[in-house]
Amino acid sequence: MAVPPSTYPRHLLPLFLGLFQGALLLFFALFVTYDEPSAQAEDTNLVANQVYSTFPFFQDIQVMLVVGLGLLLTFLPRYGFSALTHNFLLLNFSMQWALVLQGLLHHFHHGQIHLDLHKLLISEFAAVTVLISVGAILGRASPCQLLVMATCEIPIYLATEWVIVTCLGVLDVGGTITIHIFSCYFGLGVSKALFRAAQQPLHPKETPTPSSDLMSLVGTLILWVFWPSFVAVLCQPGDAQHRAILNTLLAMSASAITTVVVSSLLERDSKLSLGHLQNGSLAGGVAIGVVADMPMPPVAAPALGSLSAMVCVLGFRFLTPFLKRKLTLHDQCGIHNLHGLPGILGAAASIVAVLVTSKDTSGYQHSQLSPVGGNASEVMKGQWGPRGVGGQALCQAAGLAVATGASLLTGLLTGAALRLPCLALPPERLCFDDSLYFKIQDQAERPGPDSSSEEGALALKE
Amino acid sequence: MAVPPSTYPRHLLPLFLGLFQGALLLFFALFVTYDEPSAQAEDTNLVANQVYSTFPFFQDIQVMLVVGLGLLLTFLPRYGFSALTHNFLLLNFSMQWALVLQGLLHHFHHGQIHLDLHKLLISEFAAVTVLISVGAILGRASPCQLLVMATCEIPIYLATEWVIVTCLGVLDVGGTITIHIFSCYFGLGVSKALFRAAQQPLHPKETPTPSSDLMSLVGTLILWVFWPSFVAVLCQPGDAQHRAILNTLLAMSASAITTVVVSSLLERDSKLSLGHLQNGSLAGGVAIGVVADMPMPPVAAPALGSLSAMVCVLGFRFLTPFLKRKLTLHDQCGIHNLHGLPGILGAAASIVAVLVTSKDTSGYQHSQLSPVGGNASEVMKGQWGPRGVGGQALCQAAGLAVATGASLLTGLLTGAALRLPCLALPPERLCFDDSLYFKIQDQAERPGPDSSSEEGALALKE
Amino acid sequence: MAVPPSTYPRHLLPLFLGLFQGALLLFFALFVTYDEPSAQAEDTNLVANQVYSTFPFFQDIQVMLVVGLGLLLTFLPRYGFSALTHNFLLLNFSMQWALVLQGLLHHFHHGQIHLDLHKLLISEFAAVTVLISVGAILGRASPCQLLVMATCEIPIYLATEWVIVTCLGVLDVGGTITIHIFSCYFGLGVSKALFRAAQQPLHPKETPTPSSDLMSLVGTLILWVFWPSFVAVLCQPGDAQHRAILNTLLAMSASAITTVVVSSLLERDSKLSLGHLQNGSLAGGVAIGVVADMPMPPVAAPALGSLSAMVCVLGFRFLTPFLKRKLTLHDQCGIHNLHGLPGILGAAASIVAVLVTSKDTSGYQHSQLSPVGGNASEVMKGQWGPRGVGGQALCQAAGLAVATGASLLTGLLTGAALRLPCLALPPERLCFDDSLYFKIQDQAERPGPDSSSEEGALALKE
Repeated sequence: MAVPPSTYPRHLLPLFLGLFQGALLLFFALFVTYDEPSAQAEDTNLVANQVYSTFPFFQDIQVMLVVGLGLLLTFLPRYGFSALTHNFLLLNFSMQWALVLQGLLHHFHHGQIHLDLHKLLISEFAAVTVLISVGAILGRASPCQLLVMATCEIPIYLATEWVIVTCLGVLDVGGTITIHIFSCYFGLGVSKALFRAAQQPLHPKETPTPSSDLMSLVGTLILWVFWPSFVAVLCQPGDAQHRAILNTLLAMSASAITTVVVSSLLERDSKLSLGHLQNGSLAGGVAIGVVADMPMPPVAAPALGSLSAMVCVLGFRFLTPFLKRKLTLHDQCGIHNLHGLPGILGAAASIVAVLVTSKDTSGYQHSQLSPVGGNASEVMKGQWGPRGVGGQALCQAAGLAVATGASLLTGLLTGAALRLPCLALPPERLCFDDSLYFKIQDQAERPGPDSSSEEGALALKE
Repeated sequence: MAVPPSTYPRHLLPLFLGLFQGALLLFFALFVTYDEPSAQAEDTNLVANQVYSTFPFFQDIQVMLVVGLGLLLTFLPRYGFSALTHNFLLLNFSMQWALVLQGLLHHFHHGQIHLDLHKLLISEFAAVTVLISVGAILGRASPCQLLVMATCEIPIYLATEWVIVTCLGVLDVGGTITIHIFSCYFGLGVSKALFRAAQQPLHPKETPTPSSDLMSLVGTLILWVFWPSFVAVLCQPGDAQHRAILNTLLAMSASAITTVVVSSLLERDSKLSLGHLQNGSLAGGVAIGVVADMPMPPVAAPALGSLSAMVCVLGFRFLTPFLKRKLTLHDQCGIHNLHGLPGILGAAASIVAVLVTSKDTSGYQHSQLSPVGGNASEVMKGQWGPRGVGGQALCQAAGLAVATGASLLTGLLTGAALRLPCLALPPERLCFDDSLYFKIQDQAERPGPDSSSEEGALALKE
Repeated sequence: MAVPPSTYPRHLLPLFLGLFQGALLLFFALFVTYDEPSAQAEDTNLVANQVYSTFPFFQDIQVMLVVGLGLLLTFLPRYGFSALTHNFLLLNFSMQWALVLQGLLHHFHHGQIHLDLHKLLISEFAAVTVLISVGAILGRASPCQLLVMATCEIPIYLATEWVIVTCLGVLDVGGTITIHIFSCYFGLGVSKALFRAAQQPLHPKETPTPSSDLMSLVGTLILWVFWPSFVAVLCQPGDAQHRAILNTLLAMSASAITTVVVSSLLERDSKLSLGHLQNGSLAGGVAIGVVADMPMPPVAAPALGSLSAMVCVLGFRFLTPFLKRKLTLHDQCGIHNLHGLPGILGAAASIVAVLVTSKDTSGYQHSQLSPVGGNASEVMKGQWGPRGVGGQALCQAAGLAVATGASLLTGLLTGAALRLPCLALPPERLCFDDSLYFKIQDQAERPGPDSSSEEGALALKE
């Protein structure tokens, strides 16, 4: 079972990561500083209140990304360590990389970069795009390829986000367009360019076991619980944030129920599919992000949640096999169903919301997801700003178009780069297998076919 | 292993849930709106502060119910998906259903129903009753039966809670009487009427395995950690809430230690029973709810925690087998030991606390768990309001009596309704088995006796 | 497989715990009271704000200790129940014991002891020392021995902490010196005195399985996410707390990446070791604690995080085997690598930080971890107080020396006490085995070699 070290470029990962960490330290030493300490008691109170109002949300999001998303990805039974660790590693790498890029791009002209919790949060949001995109090629790409992908994706995301939010003025407080749609089509582009027309047959280690599916379901539930924090953290405090929390809760609750309905209707004997549950329950959260803080009637939230769960489950049942057959498009975790389709639905809903709710927006305040950070609380009051209803609706549509087009294109290019000979794909036989990346202790002690209890049980069946 | 679709009414679940979700959307469209946006900066600040002071508690409670309680129920080794999913589904269904009913009952005369986080919280509390009651029949009832049960239980809970809290003025900030006692006896009533005098022999799939017991223990620990948030969320901010948190922490800490003591003393070779640990550690939290914010001496909290862990473990050891043998009462999760007995203990403690602490209640403010929501901060100051010490003590006793009597009676009726022929019980052979409700992937791929790794191992033993 | 009850003193545990719980109740009844209720609305607001600013941190820490640390310790595949339960039991026992001792030592002269959330938090910090020390002897000591060890360690910790923080004025907001270094060397002292020169051969049940390693990794991730709350909870609100959160986040992020780099470089075929990941990712959090709120340049945080991950992984690879071989020092969880080495690194960093940042400390406020509680917000302004830069640097060094020396010495004495005949070590064959302490249900039902599915699978291999 041992992999010949000559064929697989193992030295790359520590080299790449080590250089990156060194460069980060250099960057920090040269450019980064903390805010001046508050001179007065009033300012201290202000900082304290900012910490108390942001930090619980921040921690919720950390739990989502590190524990929830990590567990969700452990549905591959032999790939649990890799799923958890690569997710964790990519989060840290991408977050630091986004911090550096943001600093260089936006703050350089101020000389020193002032670090605060809000900037870390924005970097974390950038890292989310990588964690989502990776889902398309999970288990078939090496960690080095994933790191190179992250290295490309973060600056592209920051640029796209700048165009969409700052230039076009798209309203997208929960990142539906800027994060979910972008990362989905970026990931699919990478997958297409990386695997080209190769049909990927079902790998024997690809099928979840009950115990790996259970862990994955726990991951879904953790994501489900904390999703409102993700959507609402960057909202304007007060009514907008309150509404964003309520809308997200309602959308996700409707998603959960609708997933069960649609999955039962589609499957033989009305049995539920775990894949549907693991993803459909979250679809409402993806779709609601872009409209969560808009002054729409409350019914819109559960309606959108239901619809997005529906398209998500239908996507798994019909679209994914179709794309696989016709376009030889490989989408391991079904990110198109969880992030792409509900994202597009949400973007469409935001256009409708802008057009319909234009009458009663007096007093409506809108905050924006902005990498600039310093002035994230730019407020748009009444009648959708200078642009008018139609203009804002057009903007939302343009944002959707930009996110989809830019991500697909750059994703394809990134995927082509990942085919460089120095970044070898893992051998087919060792895809979806932790033993390629981890020193599994049992294996070391007892070389043989039954290297662990679970493997023993599996071996006995085969 | 396939279940003949003709004998088991599989179409019911999606039909029922789909209709419900449609009706909810209609209800939202017709009646629900958000609060008017705050016109002034001061109001915005107020809303923001309300969000910051409630939302972290709310998230803690969501983690408890979705992840903690879900995992606690996975002690049945072949029923993990069902336990997690049914718990999750029932939470969402009951919460939405409670939201609708509350709206219709209490707010209809105001025309529009204004949605806020507090109303969602109250609905979540209503849903908790269903999640507890289900414990009595876990694994032996179909999801359709559970949904019908939830449909009945929520309005009965709202009515009972209105009688107990609003009419009788019972003090019960943590829901010991209104939630725990009510749901326990409701669940036992359902179980009795559903299974009647049928002795349920030990099912081969009913025995926990080490790995399912471990997951369940993790669920207990999650519930244990977040329990103070559940008890304190509806308290009057300030001293009362502070005291409620401290009392709950002390009670649960004493529970944990006492459970180990009593379980060791009872079992052969002084070995600990996992069932005792999983439940006894939480008993203190159940009992303390009703007195948590009362101005009693701090020793009362650990004393009550110790006592309730004791009755819980003794209940598992002696009372459950007795009830099973003599009354053929089936209580799968032992909810009578975790919610019934400690609840009664707590109610008794609240009577004592009212009588004893009457002298020094100056400045004491008490908040109530109220489904009305809008005026949950009715404050009772000094000498237990107009009713006097004896009156308030009588009220607490009356509340206990109403909760027990009403729940048992309505539970029996609901259980009888669940025997309707259209709601078939799952066949005995497929009780405690996920394969009845879930498309287990391995099974689909490889039909045969060893459909998954764990099942393979089990099959080899049998 | 049954253990002869005559040889193993099983009655001790319930006896000891029962007496302790009784004594605690007596103590509470005699001495403890709550704060007077606030008479005025302003005071109520103050208490409410204190709860809202402390409680979320407190809950995060509870999750870390109960769920995160508990899961981290479940890497021993047959010892999961014991690891989770003993950790949980020791936390509760030590917390209550610290509460009692603190009350007796510091507050006795005020007559009544006023309980509040801050005092509970300080007691929880004391309990952490026990949970860390236990890691050195996990799986080879009985619960009774662990409880006796906790009984000794808590007063020694409180005394040491008083000397270090109150007498010497050491700055250590995150407990690097007072908690991590102290508990590490205390635990190693206990281990040395308990096992003396006995070489512990590799026990067959000591090797993690993939599924136990996965749970342990989840525990690491939970600890990683919530660590900033642990470091920042006792900081001065405002800038200092904000900085402590940022520094901890940066240090832990750098730790995660550096661990992967160093572990890859050290292992054959560049494979990652799970033990390295589980510990190295957290090393940055240990080291940063002592300097987290100091006004140092931001680069110091990721640099310290990287360095400590490096020494942690190198420690596992080279130092632990060396200590085991040369000193016959048994360190089951490698606490010396996670708490000792990074702790010393952090202490050294604090000396440097004091010396280097002395120039620009105007407006710098520093809070201290103090068991006194009431006056934890003693503020040191400008130029490191009356002591001057050199004095403060000397203090930090003295604190390190005191923590190391006192803990080693008292640990050796405590370990010797644990060899008392009445506290028998578990028999070698049943080390690392839950069946000694838990009634494993399968076992009870079906006596035989294959008592559970996992064991069945294992037995088939052997």
